[in-house]
Amino acid sequence: MAATNKWMPTSFNFHPTRLAMEIDEPAATQKNAQLLLARGWGWLKGLLGKCMNKAVKVAKSTKKLGQDDPRRVIHSLKVGLALTLVSLLYYWRPLYDGFGVSGMWAVLTVVVVFEFTVGATLSKTLNRGFATFFAGALGLGAQHLACLFGDRGQPIVLGTLVFLLTAASSFTRFIPRIKARYDYGVLIFILTFSLVTVSGYRIEEILQLAHQRFSTILIGGATCILVSIFVCPVWAGEDLHKLIASNLEKLANYLEGFGGENIEGVVSDDDKKLLQGYKSVLNSKSTEESSANFARWEPGHGRFQFRHPWKQYLKIGGLARKCAYHIEALNGYDINSHIQEPSEIQNKIRESSKKMSSESSKALKELALAIKTMADPSAANPHVENSKTAINDLKTALKAATLENVDVLAIIPIASVASILIEITRCVEKISESVHELADLAHFKSVDPSVSPEKPLLLHRGTVKPVLLEGDSDSDDHVVITVHGNYVDSRENEVTQAPNTAKRLGQV
Amino acid sequence: MAATNKWMPTSFNFHPTRLAMEIDEPAATQKNAQLLLARGWGWLKGLLGKCMNKAVKVAKSTKKLGQDDPRRVIHSLKVGLALTLVSLLYYWRPLYDGFGVSGMWAVLTVVVVFEFTVGATLSKTLNRGFATFFAGALGLGAQHLACLFGDRGQPIVLGTLVFLLTAASSFTRFIPRIKARYDYGVLIFILTFSLVTVSGYRIEEILQLAHQRFSTILIGGATCILVSIFVCPVWAGEDLHKLIASNLEKLANYLEGFGGENIEGVVSDDDKKLLQGYKSVLNSKSTEESSANFARWEPGHGRFQFRHPWKQYLKIGGLARKCAYHIEALNGYDINSHIQEPSEIQNKIRESSKKMSSESSKALKELALAIKTMADPSAANPHVENSKTAINDLKTALKAATLENVDVLAIIPIASVASILIEITRCVEKISESVHELADLAHFKSVDPSVSPEKPLLLHRGTVKPVLLEGDSDSDDHVVITVHGNYVDSRENEVTQAPNTAKRLGQV
Repeated sequence: MAATNKWMPTSFNFHPTRLAMEIDEPAATQKNAQLLLARGWGWLKGLLGKCMNKAVKVAKSTKKLGQDDPRRVIHSLKVGLALTLVSLLYYWRPLYDGFGVSGMWAVLTVVVVFEFTVGATLSKTLNRGFATFFAGALGLGAQHLACLFGDRGQPIVLGTLVFLLTAASSFTRFIPRIKARYDYGVLIFILTFSLVTVSGYRIEEILQLAHQRFSTILIGGATCILVSIFVCPVWAGEDLHKLIASNLEKLANYLEGFGGENIEGVVSDDDKKLLQGYKSVLNSKSTEESSANFARWEPGHGRFQFRHPWKQYLKIGGLARKCAYHIEALNGYDINSHIQEPSEIQNKIRESSKKMSSESSKALKELALAIKTMADPSAANPHVENSKTAINDLKTALKAATLENVDVLAIIPIASVASILIEITRCVEKISESVHELADLAHFKSVDPSVSPEKPLLLHRGTVKPVLLEGDSDSDDHVVITVHGNYVDSRENEVTQAPNTAKRLGQV
Repeated sequence: MAATNKWMPTSFNFHPTRLAMEIDEPAATQKNAQLLLARGWGWLKGLLGKCMNKAVKVAKSTKKLGQDDPRRVIHSLKVGLALTLVSLLYYWRPLYDGFGVSGMWAVLTVVVVFEFTVGATLSKTLNRGFATFFAGALGLGAQHLACLFGDRGQPIVLGTLVFLLTAASSFTRFIPRIKARYDYGVLIFILTFSLVTVSGYRIEEILQLAHQRFSTILIGGATCILVSIFVCPVWAGEDLHKLIASNLEKLANYLEGFGGENIEGVVSDDDKKLLQGYKSVLNSKSTEESSANFARWEPGHGRFQFRHPWKQYLKIGGLARKCAYHIEALNGYDINSHIQEPSEIQNKIRESSKKMSSESSKALKELALAIKTMADPSAANPHVENSKTAINDLKTALKAATLENVDVLAIIPIASVASILIEITRCVEKISESVHELADLAHFKSVDPSVSPEKPLLLHRGTVKPVLLEGDSDSDDHVVITVHGNYVDSRENEVTQAPNTAKRLGQV
């Protein structure tokens, strides 16, 4: 019995029947052992099954991660490529004899410096390069100074210098502007300075080390920059550009859907999910800021020049976020629970709200399209004007309205919706202004004046894309939703040409 | 003439009179030279003055940075201390003979691993330690495997392994859960694995190197952990705890001020600035999440046990942010422009709004206080109930209201305010629920039942703190603002006992 138990898996679940079996008759021992074995086997099978399930789940979510943005897979291969290139320093004898162990610094540089976007890689490489250079020079100076104090004084002077410079540099990392752009540089400055001052005592040795280290860092950094720029580059600036346009589209989708909701009265759950795209705008501030920071380091590429007005994107992004806050407030209302037998005034308010919502949506879509195609954004102007007219119409209608036999309780929600939509319309007006500013600053091309200013055809541009909704990680279904005649991808929000122009939301 | 010009500063501004002087009579040469010198001197003086101004400005903003949070200064000194301790490895001969150049890794570890909070330092140290260990072991295995392929096959096998493992590891850094907690570990894994496989060919050498490197990393890491825990520790968990409480207080301040605004009709600009404290809540998501991530690594400290329910703080933070979105929508309204000759119904709505606003504010203050003092949050319950009663009262009043001779246009804004406040009240109710959950999970102590449930005295706890408003970086004025008898610091929101209990907002 005891021997049987010794071979049982240690994590076997303790069970009251086991105790009962142990005080059983010795004749039943073999049967019990078989029973235990069978149970152990069942447990093992269960465990294996669970592990398999877990592994399949992880594999699926990993696959989805790659499918969502294939650039991630390419980035991983690029890191592998850069590292393999640099490790040639070791494998190739003539190079190894030249650099020796210092080749390590090239490997280290590649691993630490290679980032997803070109801007981030450039920022880190340049920070690392300059910081190493200056800290190395300063470290040599410190060594020279310390030599003057004799053998006993030298460690004390060096220790004091390291302490002071490290403390001071660490503090500068709290300064917001330095934290945003030069944080890594300061870190490497501290690192190199301490290594140089602390490491050895003889200056000739240090000079040779510094030379080797600096040149290997240069090799590593150059490899990173070349690979990141010339092998399927990912530009932080382009990402920011697309993010801002897609944020405007997400807001537009909500407002379009909100207008639709008001007309039809019923919306499916899937559409509601689609409409929630604006929620990602609420928290996009940090992404926008870091992208803008990295974009500044990038050279001119494609449609973007070196001094592209990235700051203006942050301004538009901020206004879009403000608009998203208002939409979040709007999202609290369930309009449909209050539309049984609407009174005259309710109908008036709803009609104006619908107009504000749809015109703002159209204006935002035009603005997003103008940013995407880098074209003149004046096609949005008529829609902005229309939504302003809707506000005035509402005011006029309300002034003339009679309020007898009206349920005040029923008016309050619809009045709030109208009021919030007025705020949103004002927000959209401001967004339109700053997109116009951007068009001026970045010299967006103006459109052929022979095309009508409304440009209805431009609205239906783009590529057809399969849509995979959040939370559907287990199924591979492609969901395509038609919103007012446009395919809308919930993730990328690419407005695409629809085969028919059904006016209803939600053909899944 | 030419000689004089040669000595002029090269960046001297070109001026048309200079050209005129050059074709002047030679008799005037000396006078011209004097004139130029005087002008150059003036230019130099201006430049020096500008530099001085800039330096003074930088010094002032740096001083302010230290004054805002003195822990920043202490942190910088701690980094200096840890680095000086580790550099003893070099200065102290017996130690140096033991470790040799590997001591460098200790310095490197300290610089890279030492972070502001204990949690961040622990997270980085443990990530670095474990990643180095596993990658080192795996690297040795890879070396061993490659040896089997002979001298010519070895580099090819190693190169392939490095490429595959690097690409795979780089890809895992995109998985959100790994990015949040083990990003640094994966980086170090790639780094160590490539260094070990690539660096040398003989395994005995590598073993010795690995041993030295690992022990020096241990020394560096241990130094960081000890210094960060035992010298004025900054706990990420405590920061999160305080941040959530202060966010609730910021919302409460706005609502309190909004109630005041409604009564008095006029608010000064300074108060408006103070009321904008809630804006920081809008963008606190990333701070909260990273704090919660680091807090998980921290051992029990002070009032917090090892498995403190940090996730619950994120839930409360999320609800507070939702509330802040509604407040942002509320902030769009200028109530005061519509209160000339208010009608009966306007008065009723305003009265209810005032009550919802002030009761929600009181509830939030009680909840913030309960979190701060880790006490039972049930003192907030009556205020939550009161605000719910205010909603019902409003509904009853509106049902009975007559709407003859009422300006609809004037009702809409006040109705929207009421409507948004109803949403806020619901939000506050949810916040209250999750603070109660937190109190259960974290075993907050229940208060002595002999104290009345309203606990009016507890509201006036804390320390008096000077307030420096944002944007006042040039002046050193300390602004103290009295809000309903409490000093409120716009940055820290510490509620402090006031000498008098004036009911008006804004005694600057």
